[in-house]
Order: sequence, then C-alpha cells, then structure tokens
Amino acid sequence: MTQIFDNPADFADEALDGFVAANRGYVARVDGGVVRSTEVPAGQVALVVGGGSGHYPAFAGLVGPGLATGSACGNMFASPAAGQVYRVAKAANAGGGVLLSYGNYAGDVLHFGQAQLRLNAEGIETRTVTVTDDIASAPIEQIEKRRGIAGDLTVFKIAGAAAEAGLNLDDVERLAIKTNYRTRSLGVAFDGCTLPGAADPLFHVPAGQMSLGLGIHGEPGISEHPMPTASELADLLVSKLLADKPEDAGDRVAAIVNGLGTVKYDELFLLFGKIEKLLTAAGLTIVEPECGELVTSLDMSGLSLTLLWLDEELEQYWAAPADTPAFRKGSMAPRAARAAATIDDAETADVEQPTPAAAELGRQAVAVLAQVRDVVVEHEEELGKLDAIAGDGDHGIGMRRGVDAAAQAGEAASGSSVSRVLANAGEAWSERAGGTSGALWGSAVIAAGLALGNRESYSSKDAAAAVEAFARAITELGKADPGDKTMVDALLPFRDAFLAELDGGAPVDRALAVAAAAAESAAARTADLRPLKGRARPLAEKSIGHPDPGAVSFGLIAARISRHIDSQLAAVAPSTAAGNGAAE
Amino acid sequence: MTQIFDNPADFADEALDGFVAANRGYVARVDGGVVRSTEVPAGQVALVVGGGSGHYPAFAGLVGPGLATGSACGNMFASPAAGQVYRVAKAANAGGGVLLSYGNYAGDVLHFGQAQLRLNAEGIETRTVTVTDDIASAPIEQIEKRRGIAGDLTVFKIAGAAAEAGLNLDDVERLAIKTNYRTRSLGVAFDGCTLPGAADPLFHVPAGQMSLGLGIHGEPGISEHPMPTASELADLLVSKLLADKPEDAGDRVAAIVNGLGTVKYDELFLLFGKIEKLLTAAGLTIVEPECGELVTSLDMSGLSLTLLWLDEELEQYWAAPADTPAFRKGSMAPRAARAAATIDDAETADVEQPTPAAAELGRQAVAVLAQVRDVVVEHEEELGKLDAIAGDGDHGIGMRRGVDAAAQAGEAASGSSVSRVLANAGEAWSERAGGTSGALWGSAVIAAGLALGNRESYSSKDAAAAVEAFARAITELGKADPGDKTMVDALLPFRDAFLAELDGGAPVDRALAVAAAAAESAAARTADLRPLKGRARPLAEKSIGHPDPGAVSFGLIAARISRHIDSQLAAVAPSTAAGNGAAE
Repeated sequence: MTQIFDNPADFADEALDGFVAANRGYVARVDGGVVRSTEVPAGQVALVVGGGSGHYPAFAGLVGPGLATGSACGNMFASPAAGQVYRVAKAANAGGGVLLSYGNYAGDVLHFGQAQLRLNAEGIETRTVTVTDDIASAPIEQIEKRRGIAGDLTVFKIAGAAAEAGLNLDDVERLAIKTNYRTRSLGVAFDGCTLPGAADPLFHVPAGQMSLGLGIHGEPGISEHPMPTASELADLLVSKLLADKPEDAGDRVAAIVNGLGTVKYDELFLLFGKIEKLLTAAGLTIVEPECGELVTSLDMSGLSLTLLWLDEELEQYWAAPADTPAFRKGSMAPRAARAAATIDDAETADVEQPTPAAAELGRQAVAVLAQVRDVVVEHEEELGKLDAIAGDGDHGIGMRRGVDAAAQAGEAASGSSVSRVLANAGEAWSERAGGTSGALWGSAVIAAGLALGNRESYSSKDAAAAVEAFARAITELGKADPGDKTMVDALLPFRDAFLAELDGGAPVDRALAVAAAAAESAAARTADLRPLKGRARPLAEKSIGHPDPGAVSFGLIAARISRHIDSQLAAVAPSTAAGNGAAE
Repeated sequence: MTQIFDNPADFADEALDGFVAANRGYVARVDGGVVRSTEVPAGQVALVVGGGSGHYPAFAGLVGPGLATGSACGNMFASPAAGQVYRVAKAANAGGGVLLSYGNYAGDVLHFGQAQLRLNAEGIETRTVTVTDDIASAPIEQIEKRRGIAGDLTVFKIAGAAAEAGLNLDDVERLAIKTNYRTRSLGVAFDGCTLPGAADPLFHVPAGQMSLGLGIHGEPGISEHPMPTASELADLLVSKLLADKPEDAGDRVAAIVNGLGTVKYDELFLLFGKIEKLLTAAGLTIVEPECGELVTSLDMSGLSLTLLWLDEELEQYWAAPADTPAFRKGSMAPRAARAAATIDDAETADVEQPTPAAAELGRQAVAVLAQVRDVVVEHEEELGKLDAIAGDGDHGIGMRRGVDAAAQAGEAASGSSVSRVLANAGEAWSERAGGTSGALWGSAVIAAGLALGNRESYSSKDAAAAVEAFARAITELGKADPGDKTMVDALLPFRDAFLAELDGGAPVDRALAVAAAAAESAAARTADLRPLKGRARPLAEKSIGHPDPGAVSFGLIAARISRHIDSQLAAVAPSTAAGNGAAE
C-alpha cells in the first residue's frame, strides 16, 4: 500500500524532487529526469538509463561516477516520453556519445528509440542496448523479446564502469551487449503492488501461492506454485537459471538477489545463503554478490535471482568502484560539483536562427498540421469503431489527442524552422497521445523535421529525404513488417510511390497525390490481412474483412495533406504546378 | 508478511549466515554476531552495537570501517544474550577498549550491561551509551527513559567515525553521549509486522489510521490520527521535533527519513522533499541527509524522522566516510582482510589453568547450584501462583528454566576455577531463563564468580567481595531502588547483614545464616509494599498484601545455600565452624 502523497497525480514528480533534495551531492534535476551533479570527464561516454518510476533504486538511484550519467524518469511504471529521454541525454552528454540502456518494454523501446533518432540527427552519436534478462518472458531462441528486470543492474554497472575507465562508445556498447547476453534472471511474486492513490493492488497473487516469472508490473508468469520453503525456492531459481546458461559460460558468476519491495533484508539474506551453497555445489564461484533492493516495484512482494556469467573483462568492470545514491562500491575519488550553468546550458543550448526558407516551410508545416488535426477529428468516431472490432477501440481518441497536441505545439513554434516546428509537434504528439501509435507518429514527425533541417533552400530531394526519414522512423521503432496488418501496409506503398514519382521527374504535389492514392488503396486492402503484430493481433480472426485502423488513418491523413497542398498551389499559382519541388 | 524461511525457529541464524555470505569482504561470523572481517588498527576503540534481529541494516549491516566494529545479533526482536555480546566484544576489541551502544530497551540494557561487567572484570575497558532518541516514549525530563529508534544511526555513526579517527575511549564515549543528547526522532506507523512463521502481524494499526509514536515492536504510541497527506505528516513530524529541540541547538541539523519496511523509497523521498522545505523555512540547514531504510522492523508499515543537532565537532564526524554492507559514504581506503585466526583467537583465548583453591571452590559452587536448583524446583508452583496475583505468573517457570541450565552448565565446568564455573552457570541462566529476572540472576552469578577469580587462596574478604559484586550487578542492571517491591528488597538486607557479620568477625557460614534470615524476613515484609517497578507495577493494587515473588525466591535460595553450607561443614568438621572464612 502506497501511503505517502498529497495528490497521487503528482507522486512521481514530487518523489523525484525529494530524491534530488536528499542527494544533491550526486544528482541534479533536469526536465525529464536527473543527471550527475558532479563533473563528467570530457569525452566520457554518457550512460543514460531510465524507465518508469516506482522501481527505485532503478533508475535515478543509479546515477553517479562509475555507473549511469543520467536517468530519464517516467511516470509510475510508465516509460519516459521521448522528449524526456532526449533532454536528459543532452544534459548528460560529455562529448563521448551516449549509450541508452533500459529494460526491454514496448513503451521504453519506442520512446528511447525516438530520442536516439533525434540525438543522432543532431550529431550526438547515440547507441542503444536494451536489457533482456528475464528468462520467464520468452525462450532463449527469442532472447531479444525477453523483458528486463534486475539484470538492468549488471548491464548498467558494466557499461558505467567501462565508460568511467575511458572506453569509447563502440567498446562500451560492446560490453553492454555482452553483459546482457550473459545475464539471466528469474523472479517470483507473492503479491502485487499498489499505485499511489489506488484502493487496490495492480494485481494479486492468491494467498499461500507463488507465481514464478510474474513480471514486475504484473505481466503473466510461467506457473503457479504453493508457497515453497526457502530451500525449495533456492533450488527452483538456481536450477532454472543454470538450465538457461549461455553456451560460453565459465565458472565465475556475479549474483544478485533482489527484493521487489516487501520481502525484507533478512529474508533475502537467508535465501542468498542457500543459493550460494547450491551455486558452489555446482562448481561455480560467486564474485561480489549483491543482496538487497535494487530494482523494486513499489510494495510488491517478490524477489528475483540474477546471474551474470563473467569473463575476465566483465569481472573487472563488475568489481570496479561506483558511487551513486543507492549503489556504492569500493573507493572512488571525490568529484567536483558540476557548474549548474553547464547542466542548464545543455537543456537550452538549442536556440536557432531559422533561415527564411526553413521558416517559410515551418509556416507551411503548421498549416499542414492543422489540416491533419481536422481530418482526424472528422474521422475520430469512425476510427474508434473500426479499432473496436478487433482492438481496444482507442485509435480514434488516441490520434485525436496526439494530433491536437501536435497542431498546438507546431502553432506555438511558428516562425521557427520547419525542423523545430516538427520536432515540437512530434514531441507533443508522442507525449500526449500515449501508446504505440502516438510514439510512432511523434517519432516520425520529428524524424521528417530533422531531415528537412534548417537550410538556405529546399528542393524535391529534401521532400524525398523527409518521407524516407518518416517511414524509417516508423519501421525501425515499430518493428512491423509489410503484411503484419499495421500502418506500415499503407506507409510503405505511400513512400515507394512518392519516391518513384519524384525519380520520374514529377513535382512534389503530383508525387504526393499519387502516393496518397496508393496509401488509401493499400489501406483498404489490409482488410484481407490477418494481423501478426500490433493492436489487433489478439483478436486476429475478428479483424479479417476489416481494414487496419492505423493504415486507414494514415491513408486519410496522406490524402488530406495532398488536397491541402494542391489547394495552396492553386491559390498561389493557378496556372502551373510550381510547388517546392519546382525550385530545384 | 515474512515469507522466506525453512524453519521459523532458525530464521535469525540462517539470515545472519546468509548476510555474512553476501558480505564476506566486510564481516566475519563469530558466536553471537559479526565483527569486521578487515583489519582494525591496533588500539582503535571498538564500537560494538547490537540488538534484536529483524531491524536490518541495524545492526549487522552497520559493521565496517568508520562505523561499528562488531554487532551482537539476538533472535528476532530479542536482545542478544550477555554471552553473545561478550564474545562479539572480545572479538572486536583491538586493544583500545570497547564502547557498547544500542537502543534503550530493558532486555538489551540487561544483557549488554552484564557483558560490560564481565569485560571490565577481565580488564577490557568497556563503556556504554544507550540511544534514547524517540521523543514519543517519554518526556524530555526523562530522556534517559526514552527508547532508541533510528537515532541509533547518528550515535553509531559519530562514535564510529571518532573511533576511526583514533580518538580514545573517553572521547568516543563523550561524543556518543553528546550525539545521543542532541538526537530526536519521532515515528509513525500504518500497520504492524509479521514474525517469520506467524500467521498474523505482531500488532495492527486500524486501516486508514496512523499511530503517532508507535514503537518499532508495537510499543504504544502517543495518539491515533486519520491517515494524513504527505504535507500534513511532514508538518506534524517537523513541528513535534522542533518543539523538543535541545537547549543548545544551533541551526545545522543532520536529518534521517527512515522507512520501517514497506513504506518505499519514492514515498520516503516525497516526504523528505516536504520536510526539507519546512526545516529550511525554520532557518535550518540540513547537512548530508539520509533517506532510506536504516532501522527497520521486518515488513512494518511506518517511518520516522530523526534530527541530530550538529555542532562543529559532530558535523565533522557525521560527514566522515564509512564503508559497511548497508551504509557507505565518501571515499575510504580499502582495508586488508583480517587474518581469520585472530578472530577465532579472540573467541577462544580464555583457556585457564585453575589453582587448586579455585578449583575446589568451583566444585563447591557446583554443589551449591544443585541445591539452588532443588529449592527452585520445590517452590516452582508456589512462586508461579504468587506471581500470577499481580504479574504474568511465569516467575516459577522462568527461575526453573534458568537454574536448570545454570546447574547443568556449572556441572559441565566442574574442575575449572570457581570463576569459570559461575561464569558458565550465569551465562546459561540468563540465556535460557529469558526475561528480566533471568538476566539479573545470570549477571549476578557471573559477577560473583569474577569477584572470586582464580586465586591461590580464599578468605572471608573474597566472600564479602563476591556478595557485593552479586548485589551490585542486580542494582546496576535492574535499576530498582529499595521499596520498589522487587528482589532488591530482600537482596540488600541480605548483603548488609552478611557484610556486617563478617565485619564483626563472624565466619562465613554464620554470616550467611544471619543474612539469609534477614532476606527471608525482608521478603515477607514486601507484602506491605506497593510496586513501583518490575513485573507487578501494572497491577499495583492487587499485589498489596502479597510478597514480591522475586524477593521470596531470593530469600528461599539464600536460606537453602546457608543450610547446605552448614551441612557441609558439619560433615567435614563436626566440632568447629571452620568454613572458608577460617582460612584467613
């Protein structure tokens, strides 16, 4: 039961403020999370971690020398928005590039992914290593689909130590990947946790029962068991993890017994004692174990065991010192405080001088966004009904929320470059819409803006680059393939037609018209598909005969933009198609 | 709900074993608790803390350079026995003397006190500072009666840092006393905790209610409140603590927001943020705050705020580095591991060569203990009934348990010196009897043995010293005054009569007979007294007209010993009273 709050809606924010107040020697608040309040050596790789709040010491408690450089902090159990990740990463960056690392959850993947696109586009070299240690969440052949739980700590610790040792981004990324592939965790839960202000737990485990592999937010586990003795539990966890050990495993392991909230220290130690005996009997040597609360879920009753199969290189970084609010190890020289100005500068350093061309294109983008809003509003109900056939029925309202925010944010940035207008719009879209489609649309809009940049002049090549960037953002972040019955089934025909028309010498408005028609007909054809990905998958049969709502909304938007551009051109130059493309 | 165990009876022991297994770089197990596994500089004052288990990181988690040297670890929420404290202190001692520090609870006071007597008697200079920070447990005029809660940490931290800095025992003790007198805490509870294997919590707070000042084992608080907001709670705690601040308080405070188990980190941080604002508004500066789980009570739902009013000297030690399993601060040079042999040596260093006289007296003591057991067994039921009038009725069985164990332990040590026989007997008495009277009897028996020592010969002066030591142990540890209706009301007349007879030239057996008669009649006279202390206080009225069971059992035992000595003398030398005293 979470007890201490004023307004539950402010819980995560106020807790983060209090955390910073209690740890000023370690962390400073930035919009979206925290970064170290101490100097980061110039050129050091910045390790930016993060995720939902409610998992302390993950993630903000792990920020400090030898570990993370910054943490993006979402709401309770919710991914930070891409803009938050972006701002934290910018403030954390010390010129050595950024490694983003976080547990493998869909929302985090989208938002961190979007931030990565933006950081890379701005010239801050950024890589990602997601943590996939939970063996209960997918078989070993699908290790990339596994969730991240307490293995966050092994990956962060080794990446952070490697960054501290001065390794470059390639090597830090390589070590993080290796650590993740050699980390295995398995958790059990005895009962759920309660969000601030909620009357009931988020989920329950029946009294006297234990759920094996239940996720830290209540995601389904593998099996239910009567409550075991400590010895039986130790046996179970150890045997399952040893059965899943990596092929090149040696005989030295780092071990973490992690409490999720209300299984207390004496219990964790008691269990650790039994686990140590079993691992030793299996011929293994435990190296610098951790036993305590490292990745929690509020007041969830449960625990997990993590093993990292060390090699010489990993062992050195596992044993290296670290000094953070919640994880301190070994002897680390004190660090000078970072000048507050440099932290603030990093946040606000992106003041721009738009070129006349980029500002003009930005004003056009504002008008386009208003049109996009209008078409979504007009079809909100229809999209909702379509989504309700085989999904949860929120596609209409989600698009509406996102596009309302995007149009407003774009409008507010009018006069800036097209890049800035679309960045603000995309950020607002993904933060306000929530969910997968919001994050994808937001990302794609930002990506298109970044492709357009702040140039002296624009040609049809820029239009092609923008469309390509838009499509790439969707496919890279959403990871859907053609035929999966998603927005991608309308998007790719649109992109292909657009690029082919431009290649063939057509002006931008003409290419857009052809592409929009291709998108609309492709969207209609998704009615024949059986969904393999995305919102409709659980009710696949029901969706047959109905088009995918995401594909439909994309087609509607593409068609509206095309009509809008045509009408603009007609107003300016009634006799000839002299769009942007004609300037080439 | 405590979930992880095999046999609940083994919980504390197995948890401690696991704790050591997870922290071998910090601690080593000794019989009774843990000591640092790293070198302690020769001559450094040893800070030995401790108390019941279930409060992790208090107490074992605080052992390491810059903090405690050792921790005596009792069973769940139960004081360690005196023998445990003694053994841990011996293993911790580095030649600079020992400071015992622990929360002010009756059982701890008795057992640590008993250990202190024994350590001092063996030439290990030992002092005690009990922690009395909980303002809910007694008014400021009775600060010495207050309980110890999270203020343990401030006292331990400053004493440990002072020891680490090389200060001598006088100075470490002085700083610990000053810290304690400048530390104030107040806690709240939202619900109780469950001991391993128990079906129900030890106590409950009604749902939606908060109990102000409820103790960490469920001891009564000050008042009940409806569940407050975080801001209201911060106000309440801060205003109560500020109203109780020491007279010489400055404007710099160390602050600790401590979670008791299931109030989690985000909640503690949120509250800390509000507390910091209030303290700042009150003109105070917070120095190096702590916010987390520092003194817990298993899965108890509750928290406390502690303020330590700093001066320059205290601030320096508060901010000093420390490196323990659960409390790490600043940068501390790594320590060499302590040779395992030196830890074991400390435990087993007390091999003795008894003198013939001391061995003979030891054999006599074994016979006396058998007589004491017999008289207690004969009167067990009667003592129980007497105790049931105004107490809990366990005096008979408690004495029986203690004296059974003592007689057996004494028997097992037959052939050793009288000092060793009585040390073993007293230790067994206090460990097996449990409760206050067991600890007092155990202590007194050990103290008498230490006074007799291992000498070449014995005289009536030694008998006087033994009786004085016995009585002093009871009065110092039990803190009862004459007239409080306790064992002391029979003990002091016994002592006074014994010493007066010896002074007047009487032999020991004669002095004993007179003293025993005095004890028996004084015990009978306690029927007129109204209890002010001890077991019968809550039912004072009922006890009037009935003698105190502790005084009665003392009188019975004294009389039996006297008769036994007389019969021995009669058997050995029927014509003359040539007891021990005659050898002078």
